[in-house]
Amino acid sequence: MRTVAVTKIGSLRATDPDARGRIGVVDLPTPDLGPEDVRIRVAYAAICGSDPHLAEGFFGMDVPIGLGHELSGVVEALGDDAHRNGLSVGDRVAGNFVRFCGSCRPCQEGAQQFCQRLQDYNRPGMAETVTWHESQVYRLPPQVSLLQGCLLEPTSVAVRIADKTRMNVGDRVVICGGGPIGHLALQVMKRYGATSLTMIEPIAARREMALRHGAEHVIDPVAEDQAARTAEITGGRGYDVVIDASGSPRAVGGLLEIAAQGATVVYGAMYPADYEMPLNLSDYLYLKELTITGVFVSPYAFPRALQLLPHLDLDEFTQSVFALGDAAEAFDVHVSGAHPKVIIRCNDLPDRAVHHG
Amino acid sequence: MRTVAVTKIGSLRATDPDARGRIGVVDLPTPDLGPEDVRIRVAYAAICGSDPHLAEGFFGMDVPIGLGHELSGVVEALGDDAHRNGLSVGDRVAGNFVRFCGSCRPCQEGAQQFCQRLQDYNRPGMAETVTWHESQVYRLPPQVSLLQGCLLEPTSVAVRIADKTRMNVGDRVVICGGGPIGHLALQVMKRYGATSLTMIEPIAARREMALRHGAEHVIDPVAEDQAARTAEITGGRGYDVVIDASGSPRAVGGLLEIAAQGATVVYGAMYPADYEMPLNLSDYLYLKELTITGVFVSPYAFPRALQLLPHLDLDEFTQSVFALGDAAEAFDVHVSGAHPKVIIRCNDLPDRAVHHG
Amino acid sequence: MRTVAVTKIGSLRATDPDARGRIGVVDLPTPDLGPEDVRIRVAYAAICGSDPHLAEGFFGMDVPIGLGHELSGVVEALGDDAHRNGLSVGDRVAGNFVRFCGSCRPCQEGAQQFCQRLQDYNRPGMAETVTWHESQVYRLPPQVSLLQGCLLEPTSVAVRIADKTRMNVGDRVVICGGGPIGHLALQVMKRYGATSLTMIEPIAARREMALRHGAEHVIDPVAEDQAARTAEITGGRGYDVVIDASGSPRAVGGLLEIAAQGATVVYGAMYPADYEMPLNLSDYLYLKELTITGVFVSPYAFPRALQLLPHLDLDEFTQSVFALGDAAEAFDVHVSGAHPKVIIRCNDLPDRAVHHG
Amino acid sequence: MRTVAVTKIGSLRATDPDARGRIGVVDLPTPDLGPEDVRIRVAYAAICGSDPHLAEGFFGMDVPIGLGHELSGVVEALGDDAHRNGLSVGDRVAGNFVRFCGSCRPCQEGAQQFCQRLQDYNRPGMAETVTWHESQVYRLPPQVSLLQGCLLEPTSVAVRIADKTRMNVGDRVVICGGGPIGHLALQVMKRYGATSLTMIEPIAARREMALRHGAEHVIDPVAEDQAARTAEITGGRGYDVVIDASGSPRAVGGLLEIAAQGATVVYGAMYPADYEMPLNLSDYLYLKELTITGVFVSPYAFPRALQLLPHLDLDEFTQSVFALGDAAEAFDVHVSGAHPKVIIRCNDLPDRAVHHG
Repeated sequence: MRTVAVTKIGSLRATDPDARGRIGVVDLPTPDLGPEDVRIRVAYAAICGSDPHLAEGFFGMDVPIGLGHELSGVVEALGDDAHRNGLSVGDRVAGNFVRFCGSCRPCQEGAQQFCQRLQDYNRPGMAETVTWHESQVYRLPPQVSLLQGCLLEPTSVAVRIADKTRMNVGDRVVICGGGPIGHLALQVMKRYGATSLTMIEPIAARREMALRHGAEHVIDPVAEDQAARTAEITGGRGYDVVIDASGSPRAVGGLLEIAAQGATVVYGAMYPADYEMPLNLSDYLYLKELTITGVFVSPYAFPRALQLLPHLDLDEFTQSVFALGDAAEAFDVHVSGAHPKVIIRCNDLPDRAVHHG
Repeated sequence: MRTVAVTKIGSLRATDPDARGRIGVVDLPTPDLGPEDVRIRVAYAAICGSDPHLAEGFFGMDVPIGLGHELSGVVEALGDDAHRNGLSVGDRVAGNFVRFCGSCRPCQEGAQQFCQRLQDYNRPGMAETVTWHESQVYRLPPQVSLLQGCLLEPTSVAVRIADKTRMNVGDRVVICGGGPIGHLALQVMKRYGATSLTMIEPIAARREMALRHGAEHVIDPVAEDQAARTAEITGGRGYDVVIDASGSPRAVGGLLEIAAQGATVVYGAMYPADYEMPLNLSDYLYLKELTITGVFVSPYAFPRALQLLPHLDLDEFTQSVFALGDAAEAFDVHVSGAHPKVIIRCNDLPDRAVHHG
Repeated sequence: MRTVAVTKIGSLRATDPDARGRIGVVDLPTPDLGPEDVRIRVAYAAICGSDPHLAEGFFGMDVPIGLGHELSGVVEALGDDAHRNGLSVGDRVAGNFVRFCGSCRPCQEGAQQFCQRLQDYNRPGMAETVTWHESQVYRLPPQVSLLQGCLLEPTSVAVRIADKTRMNVGDRVVICGGGPIGHLALQVMKRYGATSLTMIEPIAARREMALRHGAEHVIDPVAEDQAARTAEITGGRGYDVVIDASGSPRAVGGLLEIAAQGATVVYGAMYPADYEMPLNLSDYLYLKELTITGVFVSPYAFPRALQLLPHLDLDEFTQSVFALGDAAEAFDVHVSGAHPKVIIRCNDLPDRAVHHG
Repeated sequence: MRTVAVTKIGSLRATDPDARGRIGVVDLPTPDLGPEDVRIRVAYAAICGSDPHLAEGFFGMDVPIGLGHELSGVVEALGDDAHRNGLSVGDRVAGNFVRFCGSCRPCQEGAQQFCQRLQDYNRPGMAETVTWHESQVYRLPPQVSLLQGCLLEPTSVAVRIADKTRMNVGDRVVICGGGPIGHLALQVMKRYGATSLTMIEPIAARREMALRHGAEHVIDPVAEDQAARTAEITGGRGYDVVIDASGSPRAVGGLLEIAAQGATVVYGAMYPADYEMPLNLSDYLYLKELTITGVFVSPYAFPRALQLLPHLDLDEFTQSVFALGDAAEAFDVHVSGAHPKVIIRCNDLPDRAVHHG
């Protein structure tokens, strides 16, 4: 089964060829179809901002590392007992790349994000087919196309970020970082009661995209005084909800300063493994009583992400599509940052989405 | 000071003249300006759905009962110590008709809605001026007009209803009752992550207004099978959040049936004092684990209502405006239900709102 | 496999022999041991207050209906893949009689109490052995005996009731109904910050038991004026948290009256299928803003119930123990109400619990 | 009016006399009794762990700085309008040293801890009398003595810490730091559902006190391997709730390591103004999804602290009592750490507390 994979560990951004990671198409065995499994012929798989971290060895060093966890497709086969989720062959679906075992202590406690067997079904989906447990698979609403559907997984991350904000309707919200998660979080928070909605992002094209998708304000953290702009936008108060989607050590510390008293700050990205953010306990936890948290994976968020998908404007996320064989080129484009999202067409499947007038 | 008041207890809908309540303009004394008080020259005061309940004697029988708690205006005078809320003479403001005393046990516990002195500053605002404690007064954002500003108080009710839904982004939401609170709740919930957003309302014009303001579905509870439509809209699940804004004994019971398992049901209106809704504990609390609650007044919600006001579409709420002297006629129009909101112009004040586009 | 079962549908309290339900020991087939299953040799199985409801046909009419869902025992065999929960043959265990499928929509949403496959593994445990999915099985802490361990399941119900109270430390708490769930809830709430802790119960022996286990006050709802006693105990305020564990239509309505403004009322029992409690919306949801909810089953609560078990005083719950062959007699004693809990010894197993003191 | 005060800025622990702060008794004017004010003849005022911070100039440098915010006493006089809180002359009371203005934006939002006028009524109470606004004053329950009552304020801090833990009954809890707040938090969390309750404290006498008051385990962070002990106590899981009451830069970082996945960590003390704790975002917010927060002041917590006070064991907190004139000596004893709490008797008042058996 042809599968996009990391074939050499290293930074995809490195200029030195020896240090550079490499992406290729390899042939991996197709997993057996277990009795509760679903085989999906993959339509589209999107490149995730975390994929370059995998190329750098964040989750392991043994190549080839199959890639792809943001995908859509059509059900091709169902195991004999895969009947608890209402699926049929031919269904248009997307899903969750991790399976929660249901038996370990975190699963028993309603904290599936810490499932001790998360990796058991973590199978690469940037491939001709993917074989998942039925619990990982979600049928797409009729008005969502297969091309849009491959964005279910990153949308679920934005939903989980939203869940962790403990948002009240009308709260002032800022999002730092205009990558795909930042932009999806922007659209989700726009619909979740955000006011004074602001994106902080150094790249002008991304700020403009934010304004097109509902940001009321944008801040260029390089050219502008972020704290002064915040004071101006919020009348001196700061933001009630602060979301980091940048993952950037340069950005994260300043977010504490622009948070309002009592605010919630969600660090919603991945961060360098050895980076330590200096946290002034007196200023931010004692005097300001901030609540600071983060997001790992997104259990429980997929059903609501499915509900939201038809309401999001995904056009700009689905412009850059490459054939499976052109995966290496697709990753080059991804790393260039020219597009909010780069997508691999894994099979050329007909789509039956109901398009809105 | 000329003030609109109930001058005879009775139903404003009664056809029998003896049973009918009456609205008139009376002369009431202007309260003294206490050291922490603010005197507001009233621009607009809107008629509230609860005003007819006052006419029927729900909160007391001694006429005249001065009316008006949804209002906007301009600060005319400030007491010597009214300096903690940043107000100046000339500020465009709206406010909360109840003052929370801050000293009683509920106030000390963060439950000001149960303040034991709620009535102390509950002064009629459908009048030439109103004198409130500074803590009741909120400066309007520059882009909100005085005419729109008189809707701050009902918007705060919609915000508090939203607060009590314990809404998660993407939840399915239904609102029963297309009066002004129902319509404001619709707009607030639309922005607070609602999907499959539905209004139940027997009057066609109000259903059409709901569709214009963001409802995805409407249900006519008379001509349609409400449970069947719910099943169709929600794929057999029911609504995760159910809001009653109808106050109608005919409507309230059926809402339990269309609630999803685990749903929150907010009875957000006033109800006849002696009406008892039959609640099947086995079906709704045991098997379905519903959470049922209600809303009295709206402490803590005004600042966020202010934030939301510029984002709401209030045009249809501000079409029917009467002069103070025509209050009786205005109440007739209100009772007719022909307009979502009927407003009294108490003074003809120039406005400095910054209009968009 | 010898199993206690309902052998004739009817009320266990009926005096008319024709109308009376019957309990007997029948021979039921032992389920196969699936690859993820655990076979437990049952030590003790307690009679539950809901068992008489099963005898009356609440969940189905086809006899024999195998009974027993509060049990402890020792692991006898493990399926080949039953390795995700850390279990070994010989482990002392208790568990959850329902298995959550993990694949249906409610399971995907973190609402396993509404799992659409709840009944698939609902197997009678008042038997020589029970065969459960590994996800249903919990190892007992060393200081909990097998006899105490059969109370894990009802303790999980008390924990879930506690979860739904949204308790703040120091809140005033009342529990109505001195059956086993009421008494376990009393002990759990005592440890969960309850003050002015009160039990309402008409039977003197149960009130005395409540006082022995931490109640500060008891109310006899027959001989005393419940509202007046509440006013006296709470200084006129009412209780912040009200729990019904009585399931009695005579009792449930009066609980709304003794709830404080803003209180949470948890109807935590089973109720007659056709009983409708009259709920005055104006008094209780509008003016008092109560939050009313209920409890069906107890996902997510078992791990914390395990943590609490060693802290509870279970001596009075473990005094009345019958041999498996004497099940009919045991149910007679259960129905008599003479003991807070009646337990069946299903096998005579040695125990290795570490006793304190 | 004789008042204990900082008379020279500096560290109370300094050995160099020039660098050392000084405590003395000065004569300060008695504030006027405003119409909503209450004058209290102070019975007892306890030294707070934050008082040495005041001596070091944390909140200002102008001496004399009057001290004392943990106090009890008897109402001596009431302003003409001080009637909303049910107080009478002769009432035994304690209170909150800060008054919330009720008019500023944070007060209007239900976040009185950020009241912009917190300091207006922050009057020293280690004095012959203190004059507070009625909203700051709470009548003591009959079974609490005046000597115990001066601990209401620190108990309110422990209650607010408990509020911020978002505690579920049965969660594993650790408290770092065995000063008075740590010990009060221990007792409050013991009653709020804590299991595996552990105190981390380097001083043996304080660890022993913890074991006397309900700790199940104690850890000496100097002599023991804190992470290994945690693994042993919690079966490798870590604590679900972690509370720092130490304020010590040496201690705070290690608490992140012993927190369980998904845990809440409350930094509940004061910290050096310039101390920055290194926070590894990847380990603690991404992979572990911790929620980290802090506590400034304690609005809304006093009524429940009052409810809890009769349930706490305060004997060891009330052993070290000094006369007002011996305040300097009292502070020396406080700084020595020999007693969990050092108390000043400001007046010798008869007490009418109802003592238990």
